[in-house]
Amino acid sequence: MKSDEVEPQKWAEEVYGPGIALRFPLKGVLFSGQSPYQKVEVLDTTTHGRVLLNDGCFMVSERDEFIYHEMIAHVPLYAHPNPRRVLIIGGGDGGTAREVLAHKSVESCVMVEIDAMVIESCREYLHQMSDSLKDPRLHLLIEDGVKYLEQCQETFDVVIIDSTDPVGPAQPLFGREFYANVARVLTPQGVVVAQGESPFYNTEMQVQLLKTMGEFFKNVRPYNFTNMTYPGGYWSFMFASRETSFWPANLNDKIGAMALKFKYYNAEVHQAAFVLPNFMRKALGSYLKG
Amino acid sequence: MKSDEVEPQKWAEEVYGPGIALRFPLKGVLFSGQSPYQKVEVLDTTTHGRVLLNDGCFMVSERDEFIYHEMIAHVPLYAHPNPRRVLIIGGGDGGTAREVLAHKSVESCVMVEIDAMVIESCREYLHQMSDSLKDPRLHLLIEDGVKYLEQCQETFDVVIIDSTDPVGPAQPLFGREFYANVARVLTPQGVVVAQGESPFYNTEMQVQLLKTMGEFFKNVRPYNFTNMTYPGGYWSFMFASRETSFWPANLNDKIGAMALKFKYYNAEVHQAAFVLPNFMRKALGSYLKG
Repeated sequence: MKSDEVEPQKWAEEVYGPGIALRFPLKGVLFSGQSPYQKVEVLDTTTHGRVLLNDGCFMVSERDEFIYHEMIAHVPLYAHPNPRRVLIIGGGDGGTAREVLAHKSVESCVMVEIDAMVIESCREYLHQMSDSLKDPRLHLLIEDGVKYLEQCQETFDVVIIDSTDPVGPAQPLFGREFYANVARVLTPQGVVVAQGESPFYNTEMQVQLLKTMGEFFKNVRPYNFTNMTYPGGYWSFMFASRETSFWPANLNDKIGAMALKFKYYNAEVHQAAFVLPNFMRKALGSYLKG
Repeated sequence: MKSDEVEPQKWAEEVYGPGIALRFPLKGVLFSGQSPYQKVEVLDTTTHGRVLLNDGCFMVSERDEFIYHEMIAHVPLYAHPNPRRVLIIGGGDGGTAREVLAHKSVESCVMVEIDAMVIESCREYLHQMSDSLKDPRLHLLIEDGVKYLEQCQETFDVVIIDSTDPVGPAQPLFGREFYANVARVLTPQGVVVAQGESPFYNTEMQVQLLKTMGEFFKNVRPYNFTNMTYPGGYWSFMFASRETSFWPANLNDKIGAMALKFKYYNAEVHQAAFVLPNFMRKALGSYLKG
Protein backbone atom coordinates (compact mmCIF):
# COMPACT_ATOMS: atom_id res chain seq x y z
CA MET A 1 0.00 0.00 0.00
CA LYS A 2 1.44 3.36 -0.96
CA SER A 3 1.33 6.35 1.33
CA ASP A 4 -1.19 8.34 -0.72
CA GLU A 5 -3.75 5.52 -0.69
CA VAL A 6 -4.12 5.59 3.09
CA GLU A 7 -7.46 6.96 4.27
CA PRO A 8 -7.52 9.83 6.73
CA GLN A 9 -8.61 8.88 10.27
CA LYS A 10 -6.43 5.78 10.27
CA TRP A 11 -4.08 5.14 13.11
CA ALA A 12 -0.73 3.60 13.81
CA GLU A 13 -1.80 1.54 16.81
CA GLU A 14 -0.44 -0.74 19.50
CA VAL A 15 -2.85 -2.74 21.63
CA TYR A 16 -0.79 -3.57 24.68
CA GLY A 17 -1.43 -6.71 26.74
CA PRO A 18 -2.20 -5.11 30.10
CA GLY A 19 -5.04 -3.16 28.49
CA ILE A 20 -3.94 0.06 26.89
CA ALA A 21 -4.14 1.02 23.25
CA LEU A 22 -1.87 3.78 22.01
CA ARG A 23 -2.48 5.44 18.64
CA PHE A 24 -0.84 8.05 16.45
CA PRO A 25 -2.48 9.45 13.30
CA LEU A 26 -1.28 7.37 10.34
CA LYS A 27 0.19 9.17 7.36
CA GLY A 28 1.36 6.15 5.41
CA VAL A 29 2.65 2.60 5.44
CA LEU A 30 6.29 2.61 4.35
CA PHE A 31 7.05 -1.05 4.93
CA SER A 32 5.16 -4.11 6.08
CA GLY A 33 6.59 -7.62 6.02
CA GLN A 34 6.61 -10.93 7.83
CA SER A 35 10.08 -12.19 8.74
CA PRO A 36 10.77 -15.69 10.13
CA TYR A 37 10.61 -14.07 13.58
CA GLN A 38 7.96 -11.37 13.60
CA LYS A 39 5.83 -8.90 11.68
CA VAL A 40 7.92 -5.82 10.86
CA GLU A 41 6.33 -2.48 9.98
CA VAL A 42 7.61 1.02 9.37
CA LEU A 43 4.74 3.51 9.46
CA ASP A 44 4.71 7.25 8.99
CA THR A 45 2.66 9.27 11.49
CA THR A 46 1.63 12.91 11.42
CA THR A 47 2.80 13.61 14.96
CA HIS A 48 5.66 11.26 15.86
CA GLY A 49 7.43 10.92 12.52
CA ARG A 50 8.25 7.43 11.36
CA VAL A 51 7.67 4.55 13.77
CA LEU A 52 8.92 0.95 13.81
CA LEU A 53 6.59 -1.81 15.02
CA ASN A 54 7.51 -5.43 15.69
CA ASP A 55 4.49 -7.74 16.02
CA GLY A 56 2.27 -4.70 16.43
CA CYS A 57 4.27 -3.13 19.27
CA PHE A 58 5.88 0.28 18.92
CA MET A 59 9.67 -0.01 19.12
CA VAL A 60 10.74 3.54 18.35
CA SER A 61 9.41 6.79 16.92
CA GLU A 62 11.64 9.35 15.26
CA ARG A 63 10.28 12.02 17.57
CA ASP A 64 11.12 10.52 20.96
CA GLU A 65 13.66 7.75 20.29
CA PHE A 66 16.44 9.97 21.66
CA ILE A 67 15.22 9.32 25.19
CA TYR A 68 15.32 5.52 24.95
CA HIS A 69 18.64 5.40 23.12
CA GLU A 70 20.46 7.97 25.22
CA MET A 71 19.36 6.23 28.40
CA ILE A 72 20.17 2.68 27.32
CA ALA A 73 23.66 3.69 26.11
CA HIS A 74 25.04 6.54 28.22
CA VAL A 75 24.15 5.20 31.65
CA PRO A 76 26.37 2.07 31.25
CA LEU A 77 29.02 3.78 29.14
CA TYR A 78 29.55 6.63 31.58
CA ALA A 79 29.30 4.31 34.58
CA HIS A 80 32.16 2.24 33.14
CA PRO A 81 35.64 3.77 33.69
CA ASN A 82 36.81 3.22 30.10
CA PRO A 83 34.46 1.38 27.74
CA ARG A 84 36.37 0.19 24.67
CA ARG A 85 34.50 -2.90 23.50
CA VAL A 86 30.69 -2.93 23.44
CA LEU A 87 28.22 -5.69 22.53
CA ILE A 88 24.63 -4.90 21.56
CA ILE A 89 22.14 -7.79 21.41
CA GLY A 90 19.16 -6.71 19.29
CA GLY A 91 18.88 -2.99 18.64
CA GLY A 92 18.31 -3.52 14.90
CA ASP A 93 17.14 0.04 14.24
CA GLY A 94 20.65 1.32 15.00
CA GLY A 95 19.68 3.96 17.56
CA THR A 96 21.56 2.32 20.42
CA ALA A 97 24.64 1.86 18.22
CA ARG A 98 24.49 5.56 17.32
CA GLU A 99 24.72 6.59 20.98
CA VAL A 100 27.36 3.96 21.81
CA LEU A 101 29.55 5.12 18.93
CA ALA A 102 29.29 8.73 20.11
CA HIS A 103 31.80 7.68 22.82
CA LYS A 104 35.31 8.17 21.50
CA SER A 105 36.68 5.53 23.88
CA VAL A 106 34.71 2.86 21.99
CA GLU A 107 37.03 1.02 19.60
CA SER A 108 34.61 -1.69 18.58
CA CYS A 109 30.87 -2.30 18.82
CA VAL A 110 29.54 -5.74 17.92
CA MET A 111 25.81 -5.76 17.21
CA VAL A 112 23.96 -9.07 16.98
CA GLU A 113 20.48 -8.72 15.51
CA ILE A 114 18.46 -11.84 14.77
CA ASP A 115 16.16 -10.33 12.17
CA ALA A 116 17.58 -9.14 8.84
CA MET A 117 14.22 -7.64 7.93
CA VAL A 118 14.47 -5.17 10.85
CA ILE A 119 17.92 -4.09 9.67
CA GLU A 120 16.85 -3.77 6.04
CA SER A 121 13.66 -1.83 6.72
CA CYS A 122 15.43 0.55 9.10
CA ARG A 123 18.29 1.04 6.64
CA GLU A 124 15.72 2.01 4.04
CA TYR A 125 13.33 4.14 6.10
CA LEU A 126 14.85 5.13 9.46
CA HIS A 127 18.14 6.82 8.60
CA GLN A 128 18.06 8.91 11.77
CA MET A 129 18.98 5.72 13.60
CA SER A 130 20.35 3.30 11.00
CA ASP A 131 23.05 5.61 9.62
CA SER A 132 25.11 4.51 12.62
CA LEU A 133 25.45 1.08 11.00
CA LYS A 134 27.86 2.61 8.47
CA ASP A 135 30.42 3.40 11.20
CA PRO A 136 33.60 1.34 10.60
CA ARG A 137 33.76 0.49 14.32
CA LEU A 138 30.34 -1.23 14.06
CA HIS A 139 30.43 -4.99 13.35
CA LEU A 140 26.96 -6.18 12.47
CA LEU A 141 26.10 -9.87 12.73
CA ILE A 142 22.70 -11.16 11.62
CA GLU A 143 22.29 -14.08 13.98
CA ASP A 144 20.66 -15.31 17.16
CA GLY A 145 22.15 -13.42 20.11
CA VAL A 146 21.67 -16.43 22.39
CA LYS A 147 23.71 -18.70 20.11
CA TYR A 148 26.29 -15.98 19.52
CA LEU A 149 26.91 -15.67 23.24
CA GLU A 150 27.07 -19.45 23.77
CA GLN A 151 30.03 -19.63 21.41
CA CYS A 152 31.56 -16.20 22.06
CA GLN A 153 35.24 -16.22 23.05
CA GLU A 154 35.65 -12.44 23.12
CA THR A 155 35.14 -10.14 26.08
CA PHE A 156 33.25 -6.86 26.38
CA ASP A 157 33.25 -3.85 28.68
CA VAL A 158 29.56 -3.12 28.15
CA VAL A 159 26.78 -5.47 27.03
CA ILE A 160 23.47 -3.88 26.06
CA ILE A 161 20.42 -6.07 25.60
CA ASP A 162 18.17 -3.91 23.46
CA SER A 163 15.38 -6.41 23.03
CA THR A 164 11.65 -6.53 22.50
CA ASP A 165 9.37 -7.90 25.21
CA PRO A 166 9.87 -11.47 26.50
CA VAL A 167 7.51 -13.05 23.99
CA GLY A 168 8.51 -14.32 20.55
CA PRO A 169 12.14 -14.08 19.47
CA ALA A 170 13.30 -12.15 22.56
CA GLN A 171 12.07 -14.66 25.15
CA PRO A 172 15.45 -16.45 25.69
CA LEU A 173 17.07 -13.04 26.26
CA PHE A 174 15.37 -12.95 29.65
CA GLY A 175 16.62 -16.40 30.74
CA ARG A 176 19.24 -17.81 33.11
CA GLU A 177 21.42 -19.52 30.48
CA PHE A 178 21.66 -16.31 28.53
CA TYR A 179 22.81 -14.31 31.55
CA ALA A 180 25.37 -16.96 32.47
CA ASN A 181 26.96 -16.28 29.09
CA VAL A 182 26.65 -12.51 29.44
CA ALA A 183 28.51 -12.77 32.75
CA ARG A 184 31.16 -14.98 31.12
CA VAL A 185 32.01 -12.52 28.32
CA LEU A 186 31.96 -9.44 30.55
CA THR A 187 35.24 -7.91 31.77
CA PRO A 188 35.57 -7.51 35.58
CA GLN A 189 34.60 -3.83 35.46
CA GLY A 190 31.96 -4.56 32.85
CA VAL A 191 28.38 -3.31 32.88
CA VAL A 192 25.22 -4.93 31.49
CA VAL A 193 22.06 -3.01 30.71
CA ALA A 194 18.85 -4.66 29.52
CA GLN A 195 15.45 -3.42 28.40
CA GLY A 196 13.50 -3.80 31.65
CA GLU A 197 9.77 -3.49 30.85
CA SER A 198 7.19 -1.27 32.57
CA PRO A 199 7.51 -0.81 36.33
CA PHE A 200 3.79 -0.14 36.48
CA TYR A 201 2.43 -2.99 34.36
CA ASN A 202 5.15 -5.70 34.42
CA THR A 203 6.17 -6.08 38.04
CA GLU A 204 6.47 -9.87 37.78
CA MET A 205 8.75 -9.66 34.75
CA GLN A 206 10.89 -7.12 36.56
CA VAL A 207 11.18 -9.36 39.61
CA GLN A 208 12.11 -12.33 37.44
CA LEU A 209 14.73 -10.36 35.53
CA LEU A 210 16.29 -8.91 38.70
CA LYS A 211 16.44 -12.39 40.26
CA THR A 212 18.08 -13.85 37.17
CA MET A 213 20.62 -11.03 36.85
CA GLY A 214 21.20 -11.14 40.61
CA GLU A 215 22.54 -14.70 40.31
CA PHE A 216 25.50 -13.45 38.32
CA PHE A 217 26.16 -9.88 39.43
CA LYS A 218 26.96 -8.03 42.65
CA ASN A 219 25.13 -4.86 41.66
CA VAL A 220 21.63 -5.09 40.16
CA ARG A 221 19.12 -2.28 39.98
CA PRO A 222 16.52 -0.80 37.62
CA TYR A 223 16.56 2.77 36.38
CA ASN A 224 13.61 4.58 34.90
CA PHE A 225 13.02 6.77 31.88
CA THR A 226 10.14 8.01 29.79
CA ASN A 227 9.03 6.68 26.43
CA MET A 228 6.09 8.43 24.79
CA THR A 229 5.50 5.53 22.41
CA TYR A 230 5.37 2.81 25.08
CA PRO A 231 2.08 2.25 26.92
CA GLY A 232 1.94 4.31 30.08
CA GLY A 233 5.14 6.12 29.14
CA TYR A 234 6.98 4.90 32.24
CA TRP A 235 9.68 2.34 31.49
CA SER A 236 12.83 0.78 32.94
CA PHE A 237 16.25 -0.53 32.05
CA MET A 238 18.06 -3.01 34.29
CA PHE A 239 21.68 -2.28 35.25
CA ALA A 240 24.05 -5.02 36.48
CA SER A 241 27.78 -5.16 37.21
CA ARG A 242 30.36 -6.87 39.38
CA GLU A 243 32.70 -4.02 40.34
CA THR A 244 31.38 -0.88 38.69
CA SER A 245 29.02 1.32 40.67
CA PHE A 246 25.75 2.61 39.26
CA TRP A 247 27.23 6.07 38.81
CA PRO A 248 30.76 7.44 38.97
CA ALA A 249 31.61 10.30 41.32
CA ASN A 250 32.92 12.58 38.57
CA LEU A 251 30.07 12.15 36.14
CA ASN A 252 29.83 15.80 35.09
CA ASP A 253 33.55 15.89 34.30
CA LYS A 254 33.34 12.66 32.32
CA ILE A 255 30.48 13.96 30.19
CA GLY A 256 32.25 17.28 29.56
CA ALA A 257 31.53 18.88 26.20
CA MET A 258 29.41 15.88 25.15
CA ALA A 259 26.68 17.39 27.33
CA LEU A 260 25.84 19.68 24.41
CA LYS A 261 25.05 16.69 22.21
CA PHE A 262 22.51 15.02 24.45
CA LYS A 263 18.82 15.86 24.31
CA TYR A 264 17.77 13.94 27.43
CA TYR A 265 20.77 12.53 29.30
CA ASN A 266 22.83 14.50 31.80
CA ALA A 267 24.63 13.71 35.05
CA GLU A 268 21.65 14.57 37.24
CA VAL A 269 19.27 12.57 35.04
CA HIS A 270 21.64 9.59 35.35
CA GLN A 271 21.41 9.65 39.14
CA ALA A 272 17.71 10.57 39.36
CA ALA A 273 16.80 7.66 37.08
CA PHE A 274 17.87 5.22 39.81
CA VAL A 275 15.50 6.78 42.35
CA LEU A 276 12.54 4.46 42.80
CA PRO A 277 9.04 5.45 43.89
CA ASN A 278 7.61 3.58 46.88
CA PHE A 279 5.60 1.10 44.82
CA MET A 280 8.79 -0.02 43.04
CA ARG A 281 10.74 -0.15 46.31
CA LYS A 282 8.05 -2.36 47.77
CA ALA A 283 7.76 -4.70 44.79
CA LEU A 284 11.46 -4.93 43.89
CA GLY A 285 13.34 -3.89 47.02
CA SER A 286 14.34 -7.39 48.11
CA TYR A 287 15.82 -8.18 44.68
CA LEU A 288 18.06 -5.11 44.42
CA LYS A 289 21.77 -5.59 45.02
CA GLY A 290 24.64 -3.17 45.60
CA MET B 1 -26.86 3.35 29.49
CA LYS B 2 -26.30 0.64 32.07
CA SER B 3 -23.04 -1.19 32.46
CA ASP B 4 -24.29 -4.55 31.16
CA GLU B 5 -25.55 -3.06 27.90
CA VAL B 6 -22.08 -2.00 26.76
CA GLU B 7 -20.67 -4.03 23.88
CA PRO B 8 -17.26 -5.67 24.20
CA GLN B 9 -14.48 -4.05 22.12
CA LYS B 10 -15.49 -0.57 23.18
CA TRP B 11 -12.95 1.79 24.59
CA ALA B 12 -12.67 4.60 27.06
CA GLU B 13 -10.72 6.97 24.83
CA GLU B 14 -8.99 10.33 24.85
CA VAL B 15 -7.89 11.88 21.56
CA TYR B 16 -5.26 14.36 22.62
CA GLY B 17 -4.55 17.53 20.63
CA PRO B 18 -0.89 16.92 19.79
CA GLY B 19 -1.83 13.64 18.09
CA ILE B 20 -2.06 10.73 20.45
CA ALA B 21 -5.08 8.63 21.27
CA LEU B 22 -5.08 6.68 24.50
CA ARG B 23 -7.61 3.91 25.12
CA PHE B 24 -8.57 1.54 27.90
CA PRO B 25 -11.06 -1.31 27.44
CA LEU B 26 -14.50 -0.02 28.43
CA LYS B 27 -16.51 -2.01 30.94
CA GLY B 28 -19.37 0.42 31.41
CA VAL B 29 -20.58 4.00 31.45
CA LEU B 30 -21.38 4.99 35.02
CA PHE B 31 -22.17 8.65 34.43
CA SER B 32 -22.34 10.99 31.47
CA GLY B 33 -23.61 14.55 31.66
CA GLN B 34 -23.16 18.03 30.26
CA SER B 35 -22.58 20.71 32.90
CA PRO B 36 -22.54 24.46 32.15
CA TYR B 37 -18.75 24.11 31.86
CA GLN B 38 -17.88 20.77 30.27
CA LYS B 39 -18.89 17.22 29.47
CA VAL B 40 -18.39 15.06 32.56
CA GLU B 41 -18.07 11.26 32.33
CA VAL B 42 -17.25 8.49 34.78
CA LEU B 43 -16.42 5.29 32.90
CA ASP B 44 -15.47 1.88 34.18
CA THR B 45 -12.52 0.17 32.47
CA THR B 46 -11.30 -3.41 32.72
CA THR B 47 -7.68 -2.45 33.35
CA HIS B 48 -7.57 0.96 35.07
CA GLY B 49 -10.69 0.83 37.23
CA ARG B 50 -12.99 3.80 37.08
CA VAL B 51 -11.87 6.88 35.16
CA LEU B 52 -13.09 10.49 35.15
CA LEU B 53 -13.13 12.41 31.87
CA ASN B 54 -13.79 16.13 31.42
CA ASP B 55 -14.52 17.13 27.81
CA GLY B 56 -13.13 13.78 26.65
CA CYS B 57 -9.79 14.09 28.48
CA PHE B 58 -8.78 11.59 31.15
CA MET B 59 -8.48 13.32 34.52
CA VAL B 60 -7.81 10.36 36.81
CA SER B 61 -8.02 6.59 36.90
CA GLU B 62 -8.48 4.65 40.12
CA ARG B 63 -5.42 2.57 39.28
CA ASP B 64 -2.79 5.28 38.94
CA GLU B 65 -4.29 8.42 40.52
CA PHE B 66 -2.04 7.96 43.56
CA ILE B 67 0.93 9.22 41.55
CA TYR B 68 -0.69 12.48 40.46
CA HIS B 69 -2.25 13.22 43.84
CA GLU B 70 0.77 12.34 45.98
CA MET B 71 3.01 14.48 43.78
CA ILE B 72 0.73 17.54 43.60
CA ALA B 73 0.20 17.56 47.38
CA HIS B 74 3.29 16.26 49.18
CA VAL B 75 5.92 18.22 47.29
CA PRO B 76 4.53 21.63 48.39
CA LEU B 77 3.34 20.44 51.82
CA TYR B 78 6.71 18.94 52.76
CA ALA B 79 8.61 21.85 51.21
CA HIS B 80 6.68 24.25 53.46
CA PRO B 81 7.95 24.37 57.07
CA ASN B 82 4.49 24.13 58.67
CA PRO B 83 1.48 24.11 56.32
CA ARG B 84 -1.68 24.85 58.29
CA ARG B 85 -4.02 26.47 55.76
CA VAL B 86 -4.32 25.07 52.25
CA LEU B 87 -6.32 26.27 49.24
CA ILE B 88 -7.15 23.93 46.34
CA ILE B 89 -8.49 25.46 43.13
CA GLY B 90 -10.22 22.73 41.12
CA GLY B 91 -9.49 19.16 42.17
CA GLY B 92 -13.18 18.20 42.18
CA ASP B 93 -12.55 14.46 42.38
CA GLY B 94 -11.17 14.89 45.92
CA GLY B 95 -7.86 13.06 45.39
CA THR B 96 -5.72 16.12 46.05
CA ALA B 97 -7.73 16.95 49.18
CA ARG B 98 -7.22 13.37 50.41
CA GLU B 99 -3.43 13.75 50.26
CA VAL B 100 -3.47 17.30 51.70
CA LEU B 101 -5.58 16.16 54.65
CA ALA B 102 -3.17 13.31 55.37
CA HIS B 103 -0.90 16.02 56.82
CA LYS B 104 -1.75 16.47 60.48
CA SER B 105 -0.43 20.05 60.46
CA VAL B 106 -3.28 21.03 58.12
CA GLU B 107 -6.04 22.72 60.12
CA SER B 108 -8.13 23.85 57.20
CA CYS B 109 -8.36 23.08 53.49
CA VAL B 110 -10.54 25.29 51.30
CA MET B 111 -11.42 23.69 47.97
CA VAL B 112 -12.96 25.82 45.23
CA GLU B 113 -14.40 23.75 42.38
CA ILE B 114 -16.37 25.48 39.65
CA ASP B 115 -18.35 22.46 38.49
CA ALA B 116 -20.93 20.87 40.83
CA MET B 117 -21.40 18.01 38.36
CA VAL B 118 -17.76 16.92 38.84
CA ILE B 119 -18.25 16.86 42.61
CA GLU B 120 -21.56 15.01 42.42
CA SER B 121 -20.41 12.37 39.96
CA CYS B 122 -17.21 11.72 41.93
CA ARG B 123 -19.14 11.56 45.20
CA GLU B 124 -21.35 8.92 43.62
CA TYR B 125 -18.78 6.84 41.70
CA LEU B 126 -15.22 7.63 42.80
CA HIS B 127 -15.21 7.10 46.55
CA GLN B 128 -11.51 6.27 46.58
CA MET B 129 -10.93 9.99 46.05
CA SER B 130 -14.14 11.77 47.02
CA ASP B 131 -14.42 10.32 50.54
CA SER B 132 -11.92 13.00 51.53
CA LEU B 133 -14.67 15.58 51.02
CA LYS B 134 -16.30 14.33 54.24
CA ASP B 135 -13.34 15.48 56.37
CA PRO B 136 -14.46 18.28 58.76
CA ARG B 137 -11.31 20.27 57.92
CA LEU B 138 -12.41 20.41 54.24
CA HIS B 139 -14.43 23.47 53.23
CA LEU B 140 -15.92 22.95 49.79
CA LEU B 141 -17.08 25.93 47.75
CA ILE B 142 -18.79 25.44 44.40
CA GLU B 143 -17.70 28.58 42.61
CA ASP B 144 -15.28 30.08 40.11
CA GLY B 145 -11.76 29.93 41.56
CA VAL B 146 -10.80 33.11 39.70
CA LYS B 147 -13.65 35.12 41.27
CA TYR B 148 -13.03 33.52 44.67
CA LEU B 149 -9.42 34.69 44.63
CA GLU B 150 -10.32 38.20 43.47
CA GLN B 151 -12.40 38.69 46.58
CA CYS B 152 -10.45 36.51 48.99
CA GLN B 153 -9.31 38.19 52.22
CA GLU B 154 -7.83 35.07 53.81
CA THR B 155 -4.27 33.85 53.51
CA PHE B 156 -2.89 30.38 52.79
CA ASP B 157 0.37 28.50 53.32
CA VAL B 158 -0.07 26.33 50.26
CA VAL B 159 -2.16 26.99 47.13
CA ILE B 160 -2.66 24.05 44.75
CA ILE B 161 -4.07 24.68 41.29
CA ASP B 162 -5.40 21.27 40.32
CA SER B 163 -6.87 22.28 37.00
CA THR B 164 -7.64 20.84 33.59
CA ASP B 165 -5.76 22.06 30.52
CA PRO B 166 -5.86 25.77 29.61
CA VAL B 167 -8.90 25.45 27.36
CA GLY B 168 -12.50 25.84 28.52
CA PRO B 169 -13.20 26.60 32.17
CA ALA B 170 -9.56 26.35 33.30
CA GLN B 171 -8.16 28.93 30.86
CA PRO B 172 -8.13 31.91 33.31
CA LEU B 173 -6.23 29.73 35.81
CA PHE B 174 -3.16 30.11 33.62
CA GLY B 175 -3.35 33.93 33.46
CA ARG B 176 -1.52 36.89 34.96
CA GLU B 177 -4.47 38.34 36.93
CA PHE B 178 -5.06 35.00 38.57
CA TYR B 179 -1.45 34.66 39.73
CA ALA B 180 -1.44 38.22 41.06
CA ASN B 181 -4.22 37.13 43.39
CA VAL B 182 -2.53 33.85 44.26
CA ALA B 183 0.55 35.83 45.28
CA ARG B 184 -1.61 38.21 47.33
CA VAL B 185 -3.26 35.48 49.43
CA LEU B 186 -0.05 33.50 49.98
CA THR B 187 1.84 33.79 53.29
CA PRO B 188 5.54 34.80 52.98
CA GLN B 189 6.73 31.20 53.31
CA GLY B 190 3.88 29.98 51.13
CA VAL B 191 4.16 27.58 48.20
CA VAL B 192 2.09 27.38 45.01
CA VAL B 193 1.89 24.27 42.85
CA ALA B 194 -0.01 24.14 39.56
CA GLN B 195 -0.79 21.46 37.02
CA GLY B 196 1.96 22.10 34.49
CA GLU B 197 1.12 20.20 31.28
CA SER B 198 3.38 17.86 29.28
CA PRO B 199 7.06 18.81 29.02
CA PHE B 200 7.21 16.88 25.77
CA TYR B 201 4.13 18.18 23.97
CA ASN B 202 3.34 21.55 25.62
CA THR B 203 6.61 23.46 25.76
CA GLU B 204 4.99 26.77 24.86
CA MET B 205 2.38 26.45 27.60
CA GLN B 206 5.13 25.62 30.08
CA VAL B 207 7.15 28.67 29.04
CA GLN B 208 4.10 30.89 29.35
CA LEU B 209 3.21 29.53 32.79
CA LEU B 210 6.78 29.87 34.09
CA LYS B 211 6.94 33.48 32.80
CA THR B 212 3.63 34.34 34.44
CA MET B 213 4.53 32.72 37.76
CA GLY B 214 8.01 34.26 37.56
CA GLU B 215 6.51 37.74 37.69
CA PHE B 216 5.29 37.11 41.23
CA PHE B 217 7.69 34.61 42.79
CA LYS B 218 11.40 34.33 43.53
CA ASN B 219 11.54 30.57 43.02
CA VAL B 220 9.85 28.99 39.99
CA ARG B 221 10.57 25.57 38.61
CA PRO B 222 8.78 22.54 37.13
CA TYR B 223 8.95 19.05 38.56
CA ASN B 224 8.07 15.90 36.69
CA PHE B 225 6.06 12.79 37.42
CA THR B 226 4.40 9.97 35.54
CA ASN B 227 0.74 9.63 34.73
CA MET B 228 -0.31 6.48 32.87
CA THR B 229 -3.64 8.03 31.84
CA TYR B 230 -2.16 11.20 30.33
CA PRO B 231 -0.86 11.08 26.76
CA GLY B 232 2.83 10.23 26.70
CA GLY B 233 2.81 9.54 30.43
CA TYR B 234 5.35 12.31 31.15
CA TRP B 235 3.86 15.27 32.97
CA SER B 236 4.82 18.29 35.12
CA PHE B 237 3.72 20.40 38.02
CA MET B 238 4.97 23.97 38.48
CA PHE B 239 6.34 24.99 41.89
CA ALA B 240 6.60 28.64 42.96
CA SER B 241 7.46 30.38 46.23
CA ARG B 242 8.99 33.53 47.68
CA GLU B 243 11.07 32.23 50.59
CA THR B 244 10.62 28.48 50.69
CA SER B 245 13.13 26.32 48.85
CA PHE B 246 12.10 23.52 46.49
CA TRP B 247 13.07 20.92 49.08
CA PRO B 248 13.92 21.08 52.76
CA ALA B 249 17.20 19.65 54.03
CA ASN B 250 15.58 17.27 56.51
CA LEU B 251 12.99 15.80 54.18
CA ASN B 252 13.36 12.19 55.34
CA ASP B 253 12.87 13.23 58.97
CA LYS B 254 9.83 15.33 58.10
CA ILE B 255 8.17 12.44 56.27
CA GLY B 256 8.93 10.01 59.09
CA ALA B 257 6.36 7.28 59.58
CA MET B 258 4.17 8.75 56.84
CA ALA B 259 6.57 7.13 54.38
CA LEU B 260 4.66 3.88 54.90
CA LYS B 261 1.47 5.48 53.64
CA PHE B 262 2.78 6.72 50.30
CA LYS B 263 2.75 4.57 47.18
CA TYR B 264 4.86 6.88 45.00
CA TYR B 265 6.25 9.82 46.97
CA ASN B 266 9.42 9.67 49.04
CA ALA B 267 12.24 12.08 49.85
CA GLU B 268 14.43 10.93 46.93
CA VAL B 269 11.51 11.08 44.50
CA HIS B 270 10.83 14.66 45.68
CA GLN B 271 14.36 15.74 44.76
CA ALA B 272 14.68 13.64 41.60
CA ALA B 273 11.43 15.09 40.25
CA PHE B 274 13.12 18.51 39.93
CA VAL B 275 15.92 17.10 37.76
CA LEU B 276 15.29 18.17 34.18
CA PRO B 277 16.47 16.38 31.04
CA ASN B 278 18.46 18.43 28.56
CA PHE B 279 15.51 19.19 26.27
CA MET B 280 13.65 20.76 29.20
CA ARG B 281 16.74 22.66 30.36
CA LYS B 282 17.12 24.08 26.87
CA ALA B 283 13.47 25.03 26.41
CA LEU B 284 12.77 26.30 29.92
CA GLY B 285 16.16 27.11 31.42
CA SER B 286 15.96 30.87 31.01
CA TYR B 287 12.57 30.98 32.77
CA LEU B 288 13.59 29.08 35.89
CA LYS B 289 14.19 31.08 39.06
CA GLY B 290 15.79 30.22 42.38
